[in-house]
Amino acid sequence: MRLDDQLAFILEIDKLKSVQRRTILTDASRAENSSEHSWHIAVMAGLLQEYAAAPVDTQRVIQMLLVHDVVEVDAGDTYAYDAAGNATKVERELAAADRIFGLLPPDQRLHHRALWDEFEEMRTPESRYANALDRIQAALLNFHSGGIAWRQHGIRASQVIERMQPVKDGAPGLWPVVERIVGEATEKGYLTEG
Amino acid sequence: MRLDDQLAFILEIDKLKSVQRRTILTDASRAENSSEHSWHIAVMAGLLQEYAAAPVDTQRVIQMLLVHDVVEVDAGDTYAYDAAGNATKVERELAAADRIFGLLPPDQRLHHRALWDEFEEMRTPESRYANALDRIQAALLNFHSGGIAWRQHGIRASQVIERMQPVKDGAPGLWPVVERIVGEATEKGYLTEG
Repeated sequence: MRLDDQLAFILEIDKLKSVQRRTILTDASRAENSSEHSWHIAVMAGLLQEYAAAPVDTQRVIQMLLVHDVVEVDAGDTYAYDAAGNATKVERELAAADRIFGLLPPDQRLHHRALWDEFEEMRTPESRYANALDRIQAALLNFHSGGIAWRQHGIRASQVIERMQPVKDGAPGLWPVVERIVGEATEKGYLTEG
Repeated sequence: MRLDDQLAFILEIDKLKSVQRRTILTDASRAENSSEHSWHIAVMAGLLQEYAAAPVDTQRVIQMLLVHDVVEVDAGDTYAYDAAGNATKVERELAAADRIFGLLPPDQRLHHRALWDEFEEMRTPESRYANALDRIQAALLNFHSGGIAWRQHGIRASQVIERMQPVKDGAPGLWPVVERIVGEATEKGYLTEG
C-alpha cells in the first residue's frame, strides 16, 4: 500500500541520525550527524538565497538538501579528504540511492531520485547553490569549533580553499566568508599554511 | 552588516542539536534531538501532503517546520505530558522567539517570526498540517523504538489519542496510522490501557 511504502521510507531514514560526520558542533561537544547537517543547510538555504550565483527555486533547493545525504544510511559519510574512500564513493552511493529511494511509491521515488541526481551533478543553479551551502556549513562549524577536525587531520589551507570552490560557483556572495575563515584559521593554527 | 547577522543566527541555532527530546530513535540507541526531529518532519512534509486536510503550500510548511523548534535553544524541549513545564512554556518560548529571531536582519526576522507564530496558532491549513506531522512523527518513533519513552513515563492510550488530535484536524488521512499505532502499542504493553 502507498502509505505503508511512504512510512517505510520515513522510518528507514531515521538511521541518518546515527551517521557521524567529521565536522564537530560549534560547542565542540561531539561530531555532527548527517541529519542535523541536512537540517542546518536547509535552514541556511532560505536565509542566504540572495548570495546565490543566479536566482534559484528555493523550494527545490530545500527539498534537495533535505534528502541529499540519505544514501549515507547505507554508504556512510565519506570524509572530504579521504582519497581511498572517495574512490569508491560514487558506486556505494548509487547502490544506496537505488535501495533507499526504491522504498518509495514510484512517483515519489522518481521525484526524490531526480533531486539527488541533480545535487550530485552540480549543473543547475539550484544544485550549485545547494552544494555551496553544503560546503560552507562544514567550514563554519570546523572554524567555530576551534578547528578540531582540521587539526586532527592536519588539513592545509589550500585543501580547504580547493574544497570550497563550489561556494565560488554557486554562492559567490559567500566567498568572502570562506576567505575570512581560511585566513583566520591559518593565523590561529587550525589549518597548516600552504 | 546583514551577512554577519545572518551568520550569527546560523551559528546560534547550531545549539538546537544539543536540545534533547523525550522521543527515542527507532534503533533505541538514544534520545532524539530537536534539530534531527525538525529535519525528519520537513522530509515528511513533502512526502505526505496528499493526506493533508486541505491543499497546502508545501514550501511554507517546510520552512515553518525547519524553524518551529529553534526557540528551544533558550526554552528547552517541554515534554508533552509535563503539566508544570507546559504552564510556563508559552512565556519562555515567546521570550526565546524575540531573542533568537531578533538576531536576523529585519525582513528575515519578520518572515521567520511569522512562520513560528503561524505554527503555534494552528489556524491555517499549512500550520495544521505541520502540527499533524510534528505529532505523528513522535508517535512513530515512540512506537518503533519499542515504546521506551511511553513506558518510562507510564503514558495511557487515551493520553496519546488526545495528544494526536491535531493529526485528525491537519492530516485526517493519517489518522488510521495513529489508531493502528495506539492499538498495537496498547496490546504490546507500551501504553497503559484507558
